[in-house]
Amino acid sequence: MSKPSIPKGTRDFLPSQMAKRNYIFDTARSVFKKFGFQQIETPAVENLKTLTGKYGDEGDQLMFKILNRGDKFKKAVKTANALTKETDFTELALRYDLTVPFARFVVQNQNELTFPFKRFQIQPVWRADRPGKGRYREFFQCDVDVIGTDSLLCEVELIQIFSEILTTLKIPAFTIKINNRKILAGIAEVIGEVDKIVDITVAIDKLDKIGLEKVNEEMFSKGVATSSIEKLQPIIKLSGSLSDKINGLKEFLKNSEIGLQGVKELGYIFKYCESLNVANVLELDVTLARGLNYYTGAIFEIVSEGFKGSISGGGRYDGLTDMFGLKGVSGVGISLGADRIYDILLENDLFPNDGLDALDVFFVNFGETEERFLMPLVGELRAKEISVEVYPSNAKMKKQMSYADAKRARYVVLIGESEIDTGLIRVKEMSNGNQEDITFEKFLQNFN
Amino acid sequence: MSKPSIPKGTRDFLPSQMAKRNYIFDTARSVFKKFGFQQIETPAVENLKTLTGKYGDEGDQLMFKILNRGDKFKKAVKTANALTKETDFTELALRYDLTVPFARFVVQNQNELTFPFKRFQIQPVWRADRPGKGRYREFFQCDVDVIGTDSLLCEVELIQIFSEILTTLKIPAFTIKINNRKILAGIAEVIGEVDKIVDITVAIDKLDKIGLEKVNEEMFSKGVATSSIEKLQPIIKLSGSLSDKINGLKEFLKNSEIGLQGVKELGYIFKYCESLNVANVLELDVTLARGLNYYTGAIFEIVSEGFKGSISGGGRYDGLTDMFGLKGVSGVGISLGADRIYDILLENDLFPNDGLDALDVFFVNFGETEERFLMPLVGELRAKEISVEVYPSNAKMKKQMSYADAKRARYVVLIGESEIDTGLIRVKEMSNGNQEDITFEKFLQNFN
Repeated sequence: MSKPSIPKGTRDFLPSQMAKRNYIFDTARSVFKKFGFQQIETPAVENLKTLTGKYGDEGDQLMFKILNRGDKFKKAVKTANALTKETDFTELALRYDLTVPFARFVVQNQNELTFPFKRFQIQPVWRADRPGKGRYREFFQCDVDVIGTDSLLCEVELIQIFSEILTTLKIPAFTIKINNRKILAGIAEVIGEVDKIVDITVAIDKLDKIGLEKVNEEMFSKGVATSSIEKLQPIIKLSGSLSDKINGLKEFLKNSEIGLQGVKELGYIFKYCESLNVANVLELDVTLARGLNYYTGAIFEIVSEGFKGSISGGGRYDGLTDMFGLKGVSGVGISLGADRIYDILLENDLFPNDGLDALDVFFVNFGETEERFLMPLVGELRAKEISVEVYPSNAKMKKQMSYADAKRARYVVLIGESEIDTGLIRVKEMSNGNQEDITFEKFLQNFN
Repeated sequence: MSKPSIPKGTRDFLPSQMAKRNYIFDTARSVFKKFGFQQIETPAVENLKTLTGKYGDEGDQLMFKILNRGDKFKKAVKTANALTKETDFTELALRYDLTVPFARFVVQNQNELTFPFKRFQIQPVWRADRPGKGRYREFFQCDVDVIGTDSLLCEVELIQIFSEILTTLKIPAFTIKINNRKILAGIAEVIGEVDKIVDITVAIDKLDKIGLEKVNEEMFSKGVATSSIEKLQPIIKLSGSLSDKINGLKEFLKNSEIGLQGVKELGYIFKYCESLNVANVLELDVTLARGLNYYTGAIFEIVSEGFKGSISGGGRYDGLTDMFGLKGVSGVGISLGADRIYDILLENDLFPNDGLDALDVFFVNFGETEERFLMPLVGELRAKEISVEVYPSNAKMKKQMSYADAKRARYVVLIGESEIDTGLIRVKEMSNGNQEDITFEKFLQNFN
C-alpha cells in the first residue's frame, strides 16, 4: 500500500501548529468582539452562479468545482463533445474568498440582520493556484467588515482594531498604509484619463513590486497617453510629511471635486486617529491602489518591516451587494493575512514562550494500585480547570518522562507506594528541575 | 437578478446561531483540554483514493467530488463513452467524516506525533445526502480520540469527559450506553454464527428503531439459522441491574473466551467509573452494536431523555490505521453530535440566558462634538476588555435604541451637551430600565 498523502497545496495542522494558529485568531477575535463585531459563517460550497464572473477569468478557472452526480452527470457525459466546458459538469464550487459569500449572505439574510451590520468571519477558502512557499490551495481568511453605513468612524475603528491586534501579537514595526480611491479617481480626472482609471490603479498598485519604470510602461501599453503619464509623475513621487502630502494633493486636485472629497476624507481620518493616539502607525501612500476594483473610498494595506508584501488589506466599497441586486449599501472592511502573520511570528520567535498548548500537570503511572489512588486527585485538579494527564499504563519511566516532555508538562507528579504511605506526593517542576515532596492539598492550593 | 441562495442542505450561521454553536464547541474544547487532548485540523479536500471504499458503496456515491480541471478534464471528455464513471472526472473529494482523514493523518505524520496521541478535531464534513429536518449536506463533527494504547483508562476518561460536557451543557437526563464488540463476537460464537457477526450486529443495532420482530426477520433474511435466532432471544431481552446483566452474560458466554474477555473489560470500566462517581450515567446495553464495523472493543452511544436517536457515539478500534498500512495501533474515541445537541438546547431553552454574544455598552451618538468627546472613554472601557459600540452617526434616537436592543446591550450610555457640561454621563441599565447620572470614572470602576 502506498503511503497516504494529502492533495497538493493543502496542509495538516499538527497540535503545535493549531495552537499557534488559534493564538492568532483568538487574539483577533477578542479585539473584534470588544468593538461589537459578531462572528458569522457561510457554507464552504456555494452555487456556481453565485461565484462565477466575480473574480475575473482567472478566478473562474482557479475555482474548485464540485462534480455533478447521478443523472446530471450521465446527461453531461452523453452530450459531451468538443465544445463541452467544465461548467457543463458542475453547479457548485468551493468558496474562493469570503467577500462574495458575505455579499450573498447580506442580501439573502437582510431581513434578519440589523444595520449597520458588523461581522467577522474566519474560514478557509480554496484556490487551485500553483502552490508555492506560503501559497496554499486551502488557506484561511479572516475578514472584518461594517456594512450599511458610510460613517468614517468605521475606518477609524478599523485602524484602532488592527493597531491593537498587531501590537498585541508583537508584529515588528508595522505600518497601516492608507489612500483613497476618490483621490485616484481625481488624479485620473486631472491627467485627462478618466476612462483608464482601472488600468492606472492596477499599474500603480504594482509600484512596490516592479518599480516606477515598469509601472509607466504598463500604463503606456494600456493606452494611457505619454503626456498623462508625465503629468502623473509628481504624484507618484509625492513625499514629505503628512501635511506636505495633503497640501501637494490639494494643489494637484484643485479642479477635481471627487479628488478633493477623497483628500477631505483622508484628512478627517488622520485627524481623528491623532486624537485617539493611533495615527503613529498610519502612513498616507498615494501610490497605494489595491488591485480590486470594487473599492470606492478609503483603501488600506498593512506592512511589517522586513516582510515582503502586505500582511492585511482592505477598504471601503459602495456597491458590494449590487451584484446580488441590493443597491446603496456602503461598507468597509479589512482582511487579516493570517498565514503571513503566522510566518512573521514564527521567523521572529514571537509566539508566547510559555507554550500555547502546554500541559499543566503530568502524573507518572506506576501501576494499577497507584493509578487508582491518584485518579481522584486528578479529578480535583481538573475541577480547578487545570489540564492533567495520567500516562495510561505503567510503561518504563523513560518513556513516560519523554511523553511528559513532548506534551511540555509544567509539573510532573510521582506517586509510588512510598508516597501513598507517607501522604506526600513528589512534584517536579520541569522548567528548573526542582523537586519537592508535599501534600496533595498544598499542591492543589498553591497551584497557579 | 434572481435572489441569491445557498446550496440545498447547507446553512448560513447568523451571529446568534454562531454564538450558540461556539458555546457548545467551547464547552467541549475546554473539557478536552483539561484531559490533555490537543486540537488538530486536516484539509477539507482529500485525495479520492484516500476516501474511496472506506464508507461502503453508499458513501462513495454520497461523497462530494471535485471536478478535474484543464487537460485532465479535456481528456476525460474526449474519451467519454457509455462506461464513463464519475471517477474518470475526479481525483479529489470533500471530507466525508473525520475518522478516515484522522487515520490518514496519524499514518502520514506518525514520526512527528507522540503516542499515545490524544487529539480532538472540530470541522465540517460533507455528504450529498437527501437533506431533511436536522440533516444537512454540510455539518460539523467533533471527534475526540486516543490512539496508540489499549489501556481501558482511556474509556474511563472518555466517559468522564462526556459526562462533564453534557452536564455543563445541562443536557436533560442523558445516559451513556455501553457495550463491547467482544461480547457480541462471543454471542455469535455461542449461537454458532461466527461468520454472521456483521449481519447480526447490523440487525441488532436497529432494535430501537424497528423492534425485535423485524430484527429477527432481518437476521433470518441474512441467513442466520432459526435455532440461532432463538438462542439469541434471552440475550436481546437481558434486563435487570448491572450485576444481573453481567452475571447473565457470564453464564451465556461461559464457553467463549472472547466473550468473557468483553465482559471482563466492561466490568473493569464500570467498577472504575463507580470509584470516580460517574457510573450513574452509564448503562450496559447488550443490544447496542453500532453500525460501523471497525469497532473491536467497548462501544458507546449517548442518548438524552425525550430526544429520538443518539447524541454521541463511538468506541474502540484496533485496526483503524490498517487501511493505510500502519498495523497494531489501538485507539478509542467518541464523536459529539453537535447539531443534535444544538437542537436539544434550543428546544429546551437551555442556552445561557445572559445572551452569549451580548454587547456590554452602547453609546448613543448625538453628533460630531459628542462623538469626539466619548471616543476616548470608549477606548478606556475597551482597554478593560469590555465590548463597546458607538452608533456610527447621529441617527434618530429610536433607530439607535433599536440597534442597541438588537445587539442586546447591557448598558446604554447617553452623552449629550449637558452631560459634557456637568461631567456626569447618563447610564441606562437595559435589563430593568434604571437610569443613573454618574461620572465616567465611577462607571468604569464599578463595571462588572
